Amino acid sequence: MRRALLAEGVGTALLLATVVGSGVMGESLAGGNVALALLANAAATAGALYVLITVLGPVSGAHFNPVVTLVMRLRGDIGTRTALAYIAVQCVAAVAGVLLAHAMFDLAWIQPGVRARAGGAQWLSEGVATFGLLLTILLGARHRARALPALVAAWIFAAYWFTASTSFANPAVTLARALTRTFSGIRPDDVPAFVLAQLGGALLALAVVRGIAPATASSPHEVP
Amino acid sequence: MRRALLAEGVGTALLLATVVGSGVMGESLAGGNVALALLANAAATAGALYVLITVLGPVSGAHFNPVVTLVMRLRGDIGTRTALAYIAVQCVAAVAGVLLAHAMFDLAWIQPGVRARAGGAQWLSEGVATFGLLLTILLGARHRARALPALVAAWIFAAYWFTASTSFANPAVTLARALTRTFSGIRPDDVPAFVLAQLGGALLALAVVRGIAPATASSPHEVP
Amino acid sequence: MRRALLAEGVGTALLLATVVGSGVMGESLAGGNVALALLANAAATAGALYVLITVLGPVSGAHFNPVVTLVMRLRGDIGTRTALAYIAVQCVAAVAGVLLAHAMFDLAWIQPGVRARAGGAQWLSEGVATFGLLLTILLGARHRARALPALVAAWIFAAYWFTASTSFANPAVTLARALTRTFSGIRPDDVPAFVLAQLGGALLALAVVRGIAPATASSPHEVP
Amino acid sequence: MRRALLAEGVGTALLLATVVGSGVMGESLAGGNVALALLANAAATAGALYVLITVLGPVSGAHFNPVVTLVMRLRGDIGTRTALAYIAVQCVAAVAGVLLAHAMFDLAWIQPGVRARAGGAQWLSEGVATFGLLLTILLGARHRARALPALVAAWIFAAYWFTASTSFANPAVTLARALTRTFSGIRPDDVPAFVLAQLGGALLALAVVRGIAPATASSPHEVP
Repeated sequence: MRRALLAEGVGTALLLATVVGSGVMGESLAGGNVALALLANAAATAGALYVLITVLGPVSGAHFNPVVTLVMRLRGDIGTRTALAYIAVQCVAAVAGVLLAHAMFDLAWIQPGVRARAGGAQWLSEGVATFGLLLTILLGARHRARALPALVAAWIFAAYWFTASTSFANPAVTLARALTRTFSGIRPDDVPAFVLAQLGGALLALAVVRGIAPATASSPHEVP
Repeated sequence: MRRALLAEGVGTALLLATVVGSGVMGESLAGGNVALALLANAAATAGALYVLITVLGPVSGAHFNPVVTLVMRLRGDIGTRTALAYIAVQCVAAVAGVLLAHAMFDLAWIQPGVRARAGGAQWLSEGVATFGLLLTILLGARHRARALPALVAAWIFAAYWFTASTSFANPAVTLARALTRTFSGIRPDDVPAFVLAQLGGALLALAVVRGIAPATASSPHEVP
Repeated sequence: MRRALLAEGVGTALLLATVVGSGVMGESLAGGNVALALLANAAATAGALYVLITVLGPVSGAHFNPVVTLVMRLRGDIGTRTALAYIAVQCVAAVAGVLLAHAMFDLAWIQPGVRARAGGAQWLSEGVATFGLLLTILLGARHRARALPALVAAWIFAAYWFTASTSFANPAVTLARALTRTFSGIRPDDVPAFVLAQLGGALLALAVVRGIAPATASSPHEVP
Repeated sequence: MRRALLAEGVGTALLLATVVGSGVMGESLAGGNVALALLANAAATAGALYVLITVLGPVSGAHFNPVVTLVMRLRGDIGTRTALAYIAVQCVAAVAGVLLAHAMFDLAWIQPGVRARAGGAQWLSEGVATFGLLLTILLGARHRARALPALVAAWIFAAYWFTASTSFANPAVTLARALTRTFSGIRPDDVPAFVLAQLGGALLALAVVRGIAPATASSPHEVP
């Protein structure tokens, strides 16, 4: 368990450092062309996800995401104590990753987000992005478990582009991104509704997966 | 069959949401640089195809495309009733995916396309793109079935760029894209000729594959 | 042999249609930003190479390139008659692919290239690009044969960017690109020196591979 | 050993030719849009890393990097003499690769870097990038050794974007890049601190990996 929590912590922190850091770099170099900044942001995030899930997945399952941990708990793949410990570590590590990104770019460590992200279109976007993420994880784990890192990376890359919210799809990521005023930030007030939309999308995915592939042979993630 | 149709529906809807949504996002951020919008559109589409074919392929074959279903019927891999049900679901789900993209970006749900896409060069482009897609699927399924999701994604990415039509290569996609006035739209009047060109390309691929690899050992897609 | 030649022909034609077509599309959309045009050109070429080598490799070896065929002949993997037939088909199909690209974009079918590509730096670039390509194919075939399509695609993508010539690395491609005045063209007068540089790079790779991995267990390509 | 050193030399030289060459090409085509130049630079570097580690890894382990060789020595995977020979070859070959890039672009062969890269934020960036690189290599080798080339390529791509230093993460690369005044250059005076930061990140990774995955079953790299 200690090793699993260390893996969740290192992975989530490096994921957030990538999301926030590549946003800062992209925006500072793109000269106002936001599409180019988002392309760099999305591609770097996908690269980091592919690496971190591959190398840390065998240790902790590489959730890095409270709704993933919640779904694993609902499926009975992990226990309640493990789930709570995972979620706590994910939230703390996500914040640490944002601070690390700020330190690497010589910015104020804490800088509450100011970017408004609210309204029905944004919430629908988060619901669809998280629905797709859980569909990817639950079906991918069943049909092609070794490809999971590439599948999650590809889904998040696509969802950065096809949703109006650029796909946070992760409550710990949402919380931590409320602490940056840079490219990838979000206004703290807008966090709770994002998290609710993510929960809704995840639960819908759980239901749809039961319709598409009813028999559950094995758990998608192994947690030691 | 119910599960297969659910998989075709979910997959086709998410595919269209990606195609149309990433087009909207790309165009709105690219500041007039259409190459950058198309790059985002093509890469997001490839990412979604890779994911959706991987996770839904084992359930329905992940056709998401009436000409693919037609070719599978012509090869005797599926029956007529299944083929018709697939095509109906694909068309309905494709339209639903476009509406979903519009809702995610707070746009009018139905907005008939206005972009003219017609003429011999465009039709030749659709024929070549669909020829290549079926060549990829039919030979890929025989030689390297596990790579099919990546192969289809890579082909569509390339065909977005090397054809004058940006490669629709799918009648359900073409129909649904006639309902958006955004980046990826097409004028409704131009749909029938696109579909004919796609059929021509697909049938030519079927003939060429018989020349290149005559012995058919097994069907490329399993439909439960 | 008939099937292998058909595969070489279809593959080489689609490869050139991709190279030239994506160059036309990239240049026309990029609004003068040549880096963006080259990015689209390189990524589309990589995508097509990955697909075509995967699906046609088991039929013909997927050389699509006279210097690859020559090296296979020098290694004794194929006979002289096969090699000559391959090279003839590659050259004819490459030209056909350029015509196809022109037709898809409604351009004059034959339009001799005007872009000067000559001088020591360009020739060194072609030598290095072709050296690396053959190193990739010869060592890749030995150590990780199933990854060859992705390896060749990744090498060519990189070589588009790190060489001054944008890496033709293929005499049939060079010849055919002398027939287009678009983004990817080359002046006919500059073709012979490019081909010589490509031959030099290929032969150097053959020697270096013998130093790095002397024992030859099996031939990298199977030709039926 | 002679074959392994030849492989390290060829691989490191081609890696540097890619890094420096694609930087020159990107900057010269991007028309002042530095984000686009860095995107080309990062993607080309990732492509070359994927290829070179795949095809040369079975011969030498494909370190191409003195801190990787040092960590392998500390783990007892290679001996002191081998480690010293590797590091010497890596440094010489890295410089040769920079000269090759300059020759391919018709630039002065030696041109000491002028770009200042110093300060705490830069050093922290190098530490984080190298920490992640070694984490990727050490855990990747244990859990998914065949994916190591893709993992290293994806990590370096991401680290180009999410660190303020664009992730050198390699003392031989740092040294060699002090010899170019182009896009990827660094001021010679700034090299020693970069190397120290890289060493720090690598040693931290070694410690963290021992915490995450204590039992060492086999060595990640085989050196003949």
